[in-house]
Amino acid sequence: MSFSEKLSDRIAVTGSNLCVGLDPRAEQIDGDLHTFCMQVIEETAPFAAAFKPNIAYFEAYGAAGYQVLEDLLQQIPDEVPVVLDVKRSDIPETQKYYAKSYFENWSVDAVTINSYLGFDSIEPFLQYEDRGVYLLGITSNPGAQDMELRDLEGRLAFEHVQDMAHKSSSYPGDAGLVVGLTNVTSEILAKVSDVPLLVPGLGAQGGNLEDLQVAGRQAPLLINASRSILYGEPDKGFAAKAEAARDKIVAAING
Amino acid sequence: MSFSEKLSDRIAVTGSNLCVGLDPRAEQIDGDLHTFCMQVIEETAPFAAAFKPNIAYFEAYGAAGYQVLEDLLQQIPDEVPVVLDVKRSDIPETQKYYAKSYFENWSVDAVTINSYLGFDSIEPFLQYEDRGVYLLGITSNPGAQDMELRDLEGRLAFEHVQDMAHKSSSYPGDAGLVVGLTNVTSEILAKVSDVPLLVPGLGAQGGNLEDLQVAGRQAPLLINASRSILYGEPDKGFAAKAEAARDKIVAAING
Repeated sequence: MSFSEKLSDRIAVTGSNLCVGLDPRAEQIDGDLHTFCMQVIEETAPFAAAFKPNIAYFEAYGAAGYQVLEDLLQQIPDEVPVVLDVKRSDIPETQKYYAKSYFENWSVDAVTINSYLGFDSIEPFLQYEDRGVYLLGITSNPGAQDMELRDLEGRLAFEHVQDMAHKSSSYPGDAGLVVGLTNVTSEILAKVSDVPLLVPGLGAQGGNLEDLQVAGRQAPLLINASRSILYGEPDKGFAAKAEAARDKIVAAING
Repeated sequence: MSFSEKLSDRIAVTGSNLCVGLDPRAEQIDGDLHTFCMQVIEETAPFAAAFKPNIAYFEAYGAAGYQVLEDLLQQIPDEVPVVLDVKRSDIPETQKYYAKSYFENWSVDAVTINSYLGFDSIEPFLQYEDRGVYLLGITSNPGAQDMELRDLEGRLAFEHVQDMAHKSSSYPGDAGLVVGLTNVTSEILAKVSDVPLLVPGLGAQGGNLEDLQVAGRQAPLLINASRSILYGEPDKGFAAKAEAARDKIVAAING
């Protein structure tokens, strides 16, 4: 089963497009890292189409944090796909080792990749038939204007990244796109084609989701929420916050 | 002392522009990871302007490899600058955590960064006054043609990355550029300005170094060698191979 199929099935079963982002910040956590993350995972799993640990926050704990991530990846329920947010890039020879780490040692379902180094730099990840990559298309930071949203030989730079996702269709693995809803216009979002999308979060008004024309899409759509679930409204439990995020996303998708 | 000053001093003391790349491949190593790397470090240090561990090869060992890297970074002699090759990218909020990992927890002198997400994504690293970053300008893989060497609003995409390195001059930290000598013409190399350069290796003929006009440069120049020292000519010791690499680089620089 391909990554897209596994994810689409999960979205159908849960009625949720919510991706629960795991960004554990030492200064905002009571207790130890592993316990905190396991509590989030266990309580939010029923509402999660996927989990997305961002490795930066585990690396910030040093080698010990890396070990916790390794342990957690074994403990996430098998039925919930895992997108490991690593945004890696390197030459093909080195990307083979990253792919081995994530897809063989850790057996995650998908990873995020920065494909600025070109198509050959993503090929090692595409050799795995039941796995996926999300290429960084339009990120949610203001710096997206510096390169991603500028004209590269007649089209926006992110459209060339999107071309790489299309080109991936002849490979065993699946490729989708990260598309943020901040800093973009309706015209730009209309250029985003029907590939698996990972959206970093709803926009301030949530309205831009309409511009993605989600109703007509076949490929699975994930919308991430992290800080609102992990750190928002401390009097509410993780489950209640994940359920609320799921419902908000469903409402936004249905316009 | 800035990163550039520390590195320039080291280059002057050793008469070497050699950066020893640490890319330990499990399938090519006799014995354990830590012992192998320490042997390379101890034997090549006299000829090394810098060490450059590539974190991908340690990650491929799982959390245990990550722990070995953490230990090694404590054991590399203080006088040899360390460029940690991570090629990280993320939004600014997350890059802060990567910067903390590398510059505070591990105290490396410099890191490599993929700046496709824009200038704000490198700012967290530039806040450290005695540290540096190398932005990926032109990489050595064929995929460099897909984005890096294409026209982005009148200039090559890598020139916009180079602009970010220049813009960094008003920040506490230093910024340089990764520039590979493969797949580029003399005309392209002539566009590379006088910022700290990290060159992934000499070209097949070594001749392209002339096109970088190294004689007139003020900013420090590092030329990496990894596989030839770690795995080439197994009957020779690491020291002899590093010395030969240093001499070859000196000869190439002097034309």
